[in-house]
Amino acid sequence: MSSPRSQLHLNLFLAPLGHHEAAWRHPGSEPRRLTEFALYQEIVRKAEAAKLDSIFLADRVAASPESLRHGAVGGLEPLTLLSALSVVTSRIGLIGTVSTSFNEPFNLARRLASLDHLSGGRAGWNIITSGTDGEARNFGLHEIPGHAVRYERAREFLEVAVKLWDSWEDDAVLADQAAGLFADTSKVHPVRHEGTYFRVDGPLNLQRSPQGRPLLVQAGSSEDGRSFASEYAEAIFTAQQTLADAQAFYADVKARAARFGRDPQTVKILPGICPVIGDTEEEAREKEARLHELSNPQHSLLQLSNRLGIDLTGYPLDAPFPELPEPEAVRGHQSRARLIAELARSEGLTLRGLLERLAGGRGHRTFTGTPVQVADQLEAWFRGGAADGFNVMPQLTHEGLPDFLDKVVPELQRRGLFRTEYSGSTLREHYRLPRPASLYAAKPAPSLPG
Amino acid sequence: MSSPRSQLHLNLFLAPLGHHEAAWRHPGSEPRRLTEFALYQEIVRKAEAAKLDSIFLADRVAASPESLRHGAVGGLEPLTLLSALSVVTSRIGLIGTVSTSFNEPFNLARRLASLDHLSGGRAGWNIITSGTDGEARNFGLHEIPGHAVRYERAREFLEVAVKLWDSWEDDAVLADQAAGLFADTSKVHPVRHEGTYFRVDGPLNLQRSPQGRPLLVQAGSSEDGRSFASEYAEAIFTAQQTLADAQAFYADVKARAARFGRDPQTVKILPGICPVIGDTEEEAREKEARLHELSNPQHSLLQLSNRLGIDLTGYPLDAPFPELPEPEAVRGHQSRARLIAELARSEGLTLRGLLERLAGGRGHRTFTGTPVQVADQLEAWFRGGAADGFNVMPQLTHEGLPDFLDKVVPELQRRGLFRTEYSGSTLREHYRLPRPASLYAAKPAPSLPG
Repeated sequence: MSSPRSQLHLNLFLAPLGHHEAAWRHPGSEPRRLTEFALYQEIVRKAEAAKLDSIFLADRVAASPESLRHGAVGGLEPLTLLSALSVVTSRIGLIGTVSTSFNEPFNLARRLASLDHLSGGRAGWNIITSGTDGEARNFGLHEIPGHAVRYERAREFLEVAVKLWDSWEDDAVLADQAAGLFADTSKVHPVRHEGTYFRVDGPLNLQRSPQGRPLLVQAGSSEDGRSFASEYAEAIFTAQQTLADAQAFYADVKARAARFGRDPQTVKILPGICPVIGDTEEEAREKEARLHELSNPQHSLLQLSNRLGIDLTGYPLDAPFPELPEPEAVRGHQSRARLIAELARSEGLTLRGLLERLAGGRGHRTFTGTPVQVADQLEAWFRGGAADGFNVMPQLTHEGLPDFLDKVVPELQRRGLFRTEYSGSTLREHYRLPRPASLYAAKPAPSLPG
Repeated sequence: MSSPRSQLHLNLFLAPLGHHEAAWRHPGSEPRRLTEFALYQEIVRKAEAAKLDSIFLADRVAASPESLRHGAVGGLEPLTLLSALSVVTSRIGLIGTVSTSFNEPFNLARRLASLDHLSGGRAGWNIITSGTDGEARNFGLHEIPGHAVRYERAREFLEVAVKLWDSWEDDAVLADQAAGLFADTSKVHPVRHEGTYFRVDGPLNLQRSPQGRPLLVQAGSSEDGRSFASEYAEAIFTAQQTLADAQAFYADVKARAARFGRDPQTVKILPGICPVIGDTEEEAREKEARLHELSNPQHSLLQLSNRLGIDLTGYPLDAPFPELPEPEAVRGHQSRARLIAELARSEGLTLRGLLERLAGGRGHRTFTGTPVQVADQLEAWFRGGAADGFNVMPQLTHEGLPDFLDKVVPELQRRGLFRTEYSGSTLREHYRLPRPASLYAAKPAPSLPG
């Protein structure tokens, strides 16, 4: 299924109003529609009409009242929303974020398999471990466990989930009405998992799903996260500011995957790109400036503090950016803390300058230009060994998403870099990834196509 | 909102193939479609066209391989499926079962509120505590906790969920783009719950939903279950075999609700009815006999054993039904064990006779007759103070559901006993139940309409 690497992949990171922190204040945004299904339906149908591989919903399981004062927060739980979106789409992949730190593997494996059935094989799981104390405090803990413990639990969680997804072999259901035999019970397997964090008998109470397992996605870029992703992830979302950094990340992850015995082609690397697109460079810059004018630095500082797990609200905005603690000391999102510190240092930014630099995509790469310039950038990263595709993050959805889909995508298609029609029907097929055989199948099908 | 008690309520207990244990073997059933969304969509659209109040999905979080040999088991997780169904319906209520024993309140409160948003106020939660060791063993336990502990956890779970649903007041969102104020943070409340089972800071990360809280449904009929339901439930599913028993249950629960300070009219009692309908009595009896012929007594015995938590597989089928342990000794589903034992005793059944008696509805009342006879029964129970409505459980869905919707419902409508058009748009409105004010609202709206 993995064909020559001639075309790039595009995932829409769905932010209903936009990835710019002030997007909600733009007069064209409709912040009251955050909980309205029709808003999401409109966006996802546009993405499907443009033949994107997938859409993706991030998640966080807490919202402090302070964060809501100046920020448009709150919205539908990702898998709930994706289940509804599965009904109004037919081809595009549906990737949802769920934390391994605050869920039970039986419940989550079942929900993802249910979504895969509902959607005819379009479910993906972005595996996160969660990184903030605010989230931990909604689940009986006082603070978020350290990085190593979270990833240890995540590994075991995934191990259990895979066993459950595989517990019914593909041909277990007989449905023989005349003989009264529903399932071949020799093909439905208890999983009898007993580990450090979980004890699960299984089997799952659900037939194996169209993809066998949902597509496994990961976005951790810390040492622990990178190792986890290289071993298990089939698609990786990553924040990279420069071509050189992205190339180094790409080469590192592919080499790590090979060391885990995997075909590096079966790990798709998708850096984030937060474009602001204008028909001229000047128009694009005006659009960007308009968004920056709507920002509120005090709110940005609170958001950055929450993201880093470091209280920066007392720092002067116009002094040079302070030294941060070593990333290893950060209990939360280590790799993002490192990226942000490096960005401030390499560009000599003040705190205010850094906040503006982060406003468009929270550390993901922003780019302002014409459709051809954006396509040039994507092509350069794709051909330059920095990306298998991109995690597209429009800064202002109602304007920037049509700009990307109607102007950049056709330019990529003209260059032969993006599909003009879906060739497969499942998410795995879009990403040219194999369908895994069940762990329990007597004669496992080859895990990679010939 | 609670108008004179002149019309009864109808909930469809959705079993995709039917409630008779052999329904899947009927030539008109399609057991391979258990995981197919289109099957559920067809059923729910029919129920909505007939103006039913709601549909309901049961749940169990385990399936032993043995139970799959002769039984059609496995299907989509209820809230996932209801989320998808919300998109293809516009009026009918959507009630899903989720266990308080194997979930976190933050996650579940959020998923239910998300479904309530998605559906425009049509979400209901059937609160169960789960009753089998097989389920416990999928969640790190060796056996299911006792009745009292499960209900203690359920109470605290519900308390936390209510706090979370209420944590955003209805008018908390300002969405003031010009001023840059998204929420009035004085109207978004941390819940700071610290109890025996849960510690949850809150607030929920989601705006308050159209109904404020999902409709709360319960089906426990044990002493613990009845007490819980009388205190909290707004609709109660119950299994009652005779008019006298149903009247006694109805009177007891309404009196208990009053003792908890509730208006008894705000607790709707819905006994199960498993009809087999024919245009003549003879045709109905033939349909029933056909289903019984398809049953497999060994499978029925295994199912009964699992349901009771008592291994009956060694008992002779044609000897008198054995004495069961006292219900209080049953860790699992106490009230169902009591009902089954009473049924066997009062009707002098053998084990085989009991299995046949239970095949159509697992202890819910079965009834075989013409549409007029079924309507007569429903009217008698409704007018006789035994029911506010019914939990309709067709024994064979593809045949019995149209029989009920196309023949019994119009008969009830002719008698003025059932709506001919929806008058409200939310599930609470269908059941004539008030929308609860937030616990945190400064001036709570009256909890009951004047």
